[in-house]
Formats: sequence, C-alpha cells, structure tokens
Amino acid sequence: MPGLTEFELIGTLLKPLAAQSGGAFSLSDDAAFLPDPPSGYGHVVTKDALAVGIHMRAADPPGDMARKALRVNLSDLAAMGARPVGFFMALCLGPETDESYLRSFVEGLSDDVEAFNIPLMGGDIIRQQGPFVVSITAIGAVPKDDLLRRSGAQPGDGLWVSGTIGDGALGLLVAEGQGPDLFEADTSGLIKRYRIPEPRLALGIGLVGIANACIDVSDGLISDVGHLCAASSVGCSIAASSVPLSPMAREALKNEWQLMSTVLTGGDDYELAFAAPQQAEKDIKALSAEVGIPATCIGSFEAGEGLSVVDHSGKAMNFASTGYRHA
Amino acid sequence: MPGLTEFELIGTLLKPLAAQSGGAFSLSDDAAFLPDPPSGYGHVVTKDALAVGIHMRAADPPGDMARKALRVNLSDLAAMGARPVGFFMALCLGPETDESYLRSFVEGLSDDVEAFNIPLMGGDIIRQQGPFVVSITAIGAVPKDDLLRRSGAQPGDGLWVSGTIGDGALGLLVAEGQGPDLFEADTSGLIKRYRIPEPRLALGIGLVGIANACIDVSDGLISDVGHLCAASSVGCSIAASSVPLSPMAREALKNEWQLMSTVLTGGDDYELAFAAPQQAEKDIKALSAEVGIPATCIGSFEAGEGLSVVDHSGKAMNFASTGYRHA
Repeated sequence: MPGLTEFELIGTLLKPLAAQSGGAFSLSDDAAFLPDPPSGYGHVVTKDALAVGIHMRAADPPGDMARKALRVNLSDLAAMGARPVGFFMALCLGPETDESYLRSFVEGLSDDVEAFNIPLMGGDIIRQQGPFVVSITAIGAVPKDDLLRRSGAQPGDGLWVSGTIGDGALGLLVAEGQGPDLFEADTSGLIKRYRIPEPRLALGIGLVGIANACIDVSDGLISDVGHLCAASSVGCSIAASSVPLSPMAREALKNEWQLMSTVLTGGDDYELAFAAPQQAEKDIKALSAEVGIPATCIGSFEAGEGLSVVDHSGKAMNFASTGYRHA
Repeated sequence: MPGLTEFELIGTLLKPLAAQSGGAFSLSDDAAFLPDPPSGYGHVVTKDALAVGIHMRAADPPGDMARKALRVNLSDLAAMGARPVGFFMALCLGPETDESYLRSFVEGLSDDVEAFNIPLMGGDIIRQQGPFVVSITAIGAVPKDDLLRRSGAQPGDGLWVSGTIGDGALGLLVAEGQGPDLFEADTSGLIKRYRIPEPRLALGIGLVGIANACIDVSDGLISDVGHLCAASSVGCSIAASSVPLSPMAREALKNEWQLMSTVLTGGDDYELAFAAPQQAEKDIKALSAEVGIPATCIGSFEAGEGLSVVDHSGKAMNFASTGYRHA
C-alpha cells in the first residue's frame, strides 16, 4: 500500500485495538496467547470473511464494513451463547485500498472494539490484486457443558426469533436503488440494518440453560431454521403472520405483498432463531425484557423433517429460493 | 462457484478434514468448541493469509498453495514452541476458482492435515471478484509459563538458525525463470522449498526451556532477526560465512556472490531463528540430532541495538533492502 508499510499499519493503526489484551503482546509476536477461560467455561471459535462487492458495496463507508465484519462473527458467538474474548483479523488489501480507506475502516472497527469490549489479538496484512477482503476469527467463552448448539431442538418446542426479520434484505434492496417507491418514510434505518447488524449477544448469553438449540439468521430465516431442523432431526412449521416485522417492513409489504418472500428468505438479519420448550415462555419473556431485545414465538417444532410456512389462512406458502447461497 | 454450493463444498470436500475433532461438530454449527488444553498448558493463536499472484504463482499447483497456507501458520506455532491443536480456514473464491482447482487444493490440504495431525475445525467460504485468497487461523498448545517469545534474548546469547537459509528466495527466482544458468543441477528442490515450506515444529517444541527467544524466518533472515532484536532490546552480529546453505544455494553463490543478499534478505525460509545462552549449546545439539533438524550458531547478541552482518574478513556488509515488505 502506498504510504504505510505493513509494520507501520500495525504499529500506528491497529496496535491501539490490542491495548486491552495482555496475550496479544501488542501485536508484536508470532502468535497471541489466549488466557484461560473462567472456571467451568471453554472457548468457542468462529470465522467469517467479507469481501467488497459481495457483502458490502464498494460505495459503502469503510467503517461500516469493519463493523459488519466484526459483528457477523459476534453474531455467531451469540448463537452459541458465548461472551466475546478477542478476535484475529486478516486484511487483504486490494490495489484500491488506500490509506484513507484503511483509516476509516479502523475508525469504525475501533468503535466496536470498545462497544463490545473485544480486543484485537493478532492477524495478518497482505496485498492482493482483487477487491478488499477482511477475514475475522472471533473467540468467545461459554459454560462448557451448556453451549447452545444447532442440534437439540425437540418436537413440541416453540420456534422463537429475536428482533425483526427482513430489514437487512430490504435494506440491501433500497441501497441498490430498488423499490424506493415502496417507502414513503426515511429508509436510512433499513440501510443501516443491512450495513451494521446488531449481534444479539446479551440474548444469546441469557439463553444458555433456557433454549434447546440456537442459530443466527444470516442466510435467511427459512434457510437457517432449515439448518436447525436438519441438525436437530426435527421438522418445523412457521406461521408467516407471526414473523415480527419492523414498521418499515410492514409498510413495504402493505404496498407489495410479494416482498414477503424477500423478508423470509433474504439474508443479513443476524437475529437469533431458537428452540425452547413451551414452559420456557416466561423465562424467555423475562430475559427479553431484561436485555431489551424482543423475542417472538413464530412457530413450533414437530417430529419428522422438513419446514413449512403457512399464511394467515393456514395455507402453505412456497418459495422459489430458500435462502441466499454464498457460493 | 459453478458446480458446488457452499454447503456441498463443506459437506463433501471439507468435512473429512474435521473428522478427528469432536469440537468441530462436523463443520455444521455456528462456531467450534475448543477443547481444554492439557493441565499447565495454554492456547496460542496465529493467523496468516495467502493470495494467488502474491504468495503463490497462478501456475503453481493448488495443493501446494493449500499446504503452504497451513504450513506458514504452523511455522508461527513452531516459533512459539506450540503443538498444533486445530485450524480454521476462510476460502475466498475468485471467478477463476473452479471445482477442479478446489478439489486439488483440498487434496493437498488433506495430506498435511494428516501429516501434522491438525484437524480443520471451522471456517467460511465466500465468493469475491479477485484472485483466490485463503486465510488460516491456527491454534496450538504450549506450556503456559514457558512459551517462546520474540523478546527474551540476552546479551551474550548465541543466535542460532535451523536448516538452511535462502532456498525459498532462490526457489522463487528459479520458478520465475530468473538465473537458471546459475544452476547446473536439478532445481526442483529449491522450487519445492519455496512452494512447500517445512514448519520446524519438533524443534520449536523442544526449544521450550532451552531458548530465550525465537522467531520464524518468513520475511527474511535479517529482517526477522531485526524484529527479535527490537523485541528483546538487544543488538546482534551475524557472521555471513556461518549462515548454513544448501548445496544448491552454495552452487548459486559460487557463480554469483551477489545472490548472498537474496539469501540473507529474501523471505520464505520458514526456519527458526532463536537466541540461547552459550551453555545451552550441548542441549541444542542433542535436540537437533533427536529431531533430525540441523541447528547452526551464526552470530551473537550484544548489549545495545542494531544488527550487523560481517563477511569472512570481518568487514560489515550492507544491504539495499533488509527484507520483504508485505504491504
């Protein structure tokens, strides 16, 4: 990169993000030392990469890309019921990744390092001839006998989701200039949800011991609940009319009902979808109120396999695509 | 990618690489669970990315790229004295990364998963519009009060290196068609050292409790020993004539002495450079014989700062560049 060498980038821009981690050795060693988790806890590890042009638009603010890259990993930790411990980051700079882009990127990242109290512990910076790619590995701590898995859902369990579904996918539509006539109000909230998802950490951590299974909704509600069903060897029925929608999504659907397919199959929600026994309802509602994250029961698991979505009249809905396919 | 979806890629190609790890959950959950290290041990984590066109040539065999990507991370573990535990991998597929490329990539990776007994534990697959990039995070276990650091070298310590220096850089020259007239013999050994480095794990693990400081030589001998000096706040003097060379490198230098600069400053050696007190010589030689990895004393650390290289007559040598700069 013109301007700064790898060592200068690490020394000036990234080192402050590692200040809270003794084991990061100020990013100056060959590897970082991971402190022991608290007694009874173990570590979980997740890794998600984002590329400009695919997961973020080239015109999107670099700081938002940084925050999204970290947050999609935090969302995976949330789905396991884990508390953030630290993260590792590889930056793959393209020919167009200049110093000002990187400074903005690190500024956004820095905000989230502080907000989520998760230090940078190590990583790598390379150059390559493509678009900017960032690969993050996040580490979390979870009670070792109690982590939330995708498997574990039981017939009779309710299917719950956090927050609202579909805003990420609608935000991408709007950001790309599609369907703006659907919205009379300000659409910046939708775009923000696409660019900067909200990892549901407090909810995930609280669901340990309450939920039987959990996944984060990244590929799309139907696709991800399908993964949960497959891992748990159960079937599931979703009531479309119960799926929680934001006021903006409700407005869009009022104007064009077909968008319900986008809402249910589009990606980038980063909400949690979880299975919990009927008697857990009170605990879930108390937890939801305590952490300030809505939780809604939208269906139920049943013996067998397969996922069905029924509309308000009880008729099965069909979708051409069941979720975003990465590759 | 035409042919296989992300899920099929994971399910058919990658899942077998995770078979030895219970915590990987067959690559089917949001994150992996890292088993507790043995008593008295802790985990170290490192992360290195490689891109086609930069760290590997587009014409190089995909299986070699996979092995190099894993091995450069294992080399970082070796430099900390750590035993391999598991690794996480993000594959960033470009438009030209087709199914046959990926199958060859995974075949090479599979060989090294077995050879180094290190399971794949998780990761991500994305598409992007650039060259193929692979980002690996490797986790190792090390006695928690005794890990090898870059800091710790003392004035009076000897500077040692494993194996031979310069073959990686000469291998790259040859692979690029430069200087073939320097070599009368078969050069495939040099090219192989560039493409498939040998992480010095057994040596690094054995050096715990013997060496005062350690680094792996990835950027170039002079640059990396310089990092070690800076982290330890000491100076160092290297005797160029003591630097161990392979027969091929000796032959090349006989024909063109100027290549000594490439040998001392070129990257991709992935040998260990370490500091050890004089009285450790016997232990180092015994360890070296036991693990079958040569170790040579090539200089000494001294109070002060800075790195000097002297030729056989004791004259200081100067280098235009002190090592490969990544960015």
